[in-house]
Amino acid sequence: MNFTEYPASELRYLPRAAVIECCAEIDVLAVVEDALVRHGRGQTMLPEEAYLGWETSAGTAARSLAMPGGLRLSGGLALGVKTINGNLGNPDRGLARSQGLLMMFDPEIAWPRTIMESAYLSATRTAAVTALTARLLGRPGMRGAALIGCGTLAKAHLALLPAGITEVCLYDRDPLRARALAEAVRDRIEVRVAADAESCVRGRDLVVTVTTVTEGYLPFEWLAPGALVAHVSLDDVLPDVVRRAGLVVVDDWDLVRHDHRRLLGRLHRDGLLLGPDGGSHPGVTPEPSARRVDTTLAAILTGAHPGRRSEHDVVLSNPFGMSILDIALGQAVEEVAARRDAGVRLAM
Amino acid sequence: MNFTEYPASELRYLPRAAVIECCAEIDVLAVVEDALVRHGRGQTMLPEEAYLGWETSAGTAARSLAMPGGLRLSGGLALGVKTINGNLGNPDRGLARSQGLLMMFDPEIAWPRTIMESAYLSATRTAAVTALTARLLGRPGMRGAALIGCGTLAKAHLALLPAGITEVCLYDRDPLRARALAEAVRDRIEVRVAADAESCVRGRDLVVTVTTVTEGYLPFEWLAPGALVAHVSLDDVLPDVVRRAGLVVVDDWDLVRHDHRRLLGRLHRDGLLLGPDGGSHPGVTPEPSARRVDTTLAAILTGAHPGRRSEHDVVLSNPFGMSILDIALGQAVEEVAARRDAGVRLAM
Repeated sequence: MNFTEYPASELRYLPRAAVIECCAEIDVLAVVEDALVRHGRGQTMLPEEAYLGWETSAGTAARSLAMPGGLRLSGGLALGVKTINGNLGNPDRGLARSQGLLMMFDPEIAWPRTIMESAYLSATRTAAVTALTARLLGRPGMRGAALIGCGTLAKAHLALLPAGITEVCLYDRDPLRARALAEAVRDRIEVRVAADAESCVRGRDLVVTVTTVTEGYLPFEWLAPGALVAHVSLDDVLPDVVRRAGLVVVDDWDLVRHDHRRLLGRLHRDGLLLGPDGGSHPGVTPEPSARRVDTTLAAILTGAHPGRRSEHDVVLSNPFGMSILDIALGQAVEEVAARRDAGVRLAM
Repeated sequence: MNFTEYPASELRYLPRAAVIECCAEIDVLAVVEDALVRHGRGQTMLPEEAYLGWETSAGTAARSLAMPGGLRLSGGLALGVKTINGNLGNPDRGLARSQGLLMMFDPEIAWPRTIMESAYLSATRTAAVTALTARLLGRPGMRGAALIGCGTLAKAHLALLPAGITEVCLYDRDPLRARALAEAVRDRIEVRVAADAESCVRGRDLVVTVTTVTEGYLPFEWLAPGALVAHVSLDDVLPDVVRRAGLVVVDDWDLVRHDHRRLLGRLHRDGLLLGPDGGSHPGVTPEPSARRVDTTLAAILTGAHPGRRSEHDVVLSNPFGMSILDIALGQAVEEVAARRDAGVRLAM
């Protein structure tokens, strides 16, 4: 029994292929930069995400994140929720680790308006943040990049390589994966494969971690003077990188400090890391050696913070990953899709 | 550039009409009861929901909830996330207040597998919980029900009327809405329309609040001895109903106590309400007059709590609304949909 007559309404569905086509018409870096600036100006809504974790019958760890968010854009509100699920056992079966859907809402009636594949946008916005971070915080004249981990996020980073980077060194625990990725990009960039993480990192101006490890391995002493570490994955750098870096930058301190699963949140809980405002975790007395998170990417973009202080400083950027970037891109994709009538229209 | 080749995969999409058709083959009460029992046995996962609130350009309050959840069923894990959005301004425009999508996941690879309209299931499971609650906690021989609020949830309750209820009294602030609903169900139930909330409530054995009010109006003295109040909407009963009820029951104490937006969570924060374990809010000293939440629906269903103590007691049931019920129904709908090849299959 349909107890309420809903008026006929439609949803637009965009599969991955349509999202990719729409993105080809979008200046991804400009959209992500605009969203970060709006975040710095308080024109965004970024609630805590919902997290569901489980174990598959094969014993691998799987999880689903539901990340709502909103931005006040020049054309009005952009609102949505990104769902992105992951299973660490997928790559061994030839499947991408992550997959999900981004749902965009009509801000006036609040109903869902568009659903699109979210893994492509998620990887793309992550690589775009690294590219912007490198532009803002890379050493002047930076040239060589290390990519640790050769999965989807490494590929997204190679597709949106930061300006100035002319050679890339790849490392993966699975040497076949690293070699396959090197072959795939050899025609457009100077690429080599390292035998271990240390030789991949040493001497590089930009170090990007895109792994699935849950235990740190990257000590400060591997890092060249002036190196920028884009700590994209969960737990690659060791605590001494946080302690000794000349500058530590996050995307959103509230997201980072509430997270139990990543290094910076744990250091904060242990009294070893203070917020950009100098604040400690409630009920925790900071250690005398505690350091402060210096600032946010948005503050550097808006000019509220000067950024890198010296070309010799090691800079650590630790983005948590913000739904508002997916939603800003999702809004841009929606606009292209409406113009091209892309995807499939579904009755609600 | 598609930096990762995803294997071809499919999603099933079920519009509202298909969900309703599939539900016709499901024993909704049995599915919801089974999910509640599993919740009582610790066979569920119920993380905190994510909440995004905003104001529409017309100045009405809108919100999106993302509610993940999981259950261990006999056939394996059922996992998903319900998104349900609402805009209080919709009914005045002839639109349902709430709309959203339920996404079900493949527990082995974690990818989304099915998307379906969620407002129908959401209203249905809410009414099913009231029907089960009435069976468990209604006064012996109960006959008359009051429905305060005549929107979608009232209609869902009339479609799943608790066993024993033979007459219903309706009230809505908009008398036309109440009269229209009465006309629509007059052929299958004895129904009348009350001129005010008080005369609707007085003398009824079952009082169901399904309103959108944000300020309480229902005092204890309106309630007949032995009445069961199913406090489905946010904030209808006044604090003295909580204080003086013979039995106070919730669906999940963790969800209820964390909620800032509803009466029971606020009373807990104010030191006026303790958990079923006697616990007070961290850092809050309970008032001497504080009462305890007696138990959960699941504990009564599994026999861990005896339920109603006397036929004269007023019983207050205050369900928060649990995603696991939507997901249990979603799993049942998925099974019917697969058998009937219902809905639309979409490339991911």
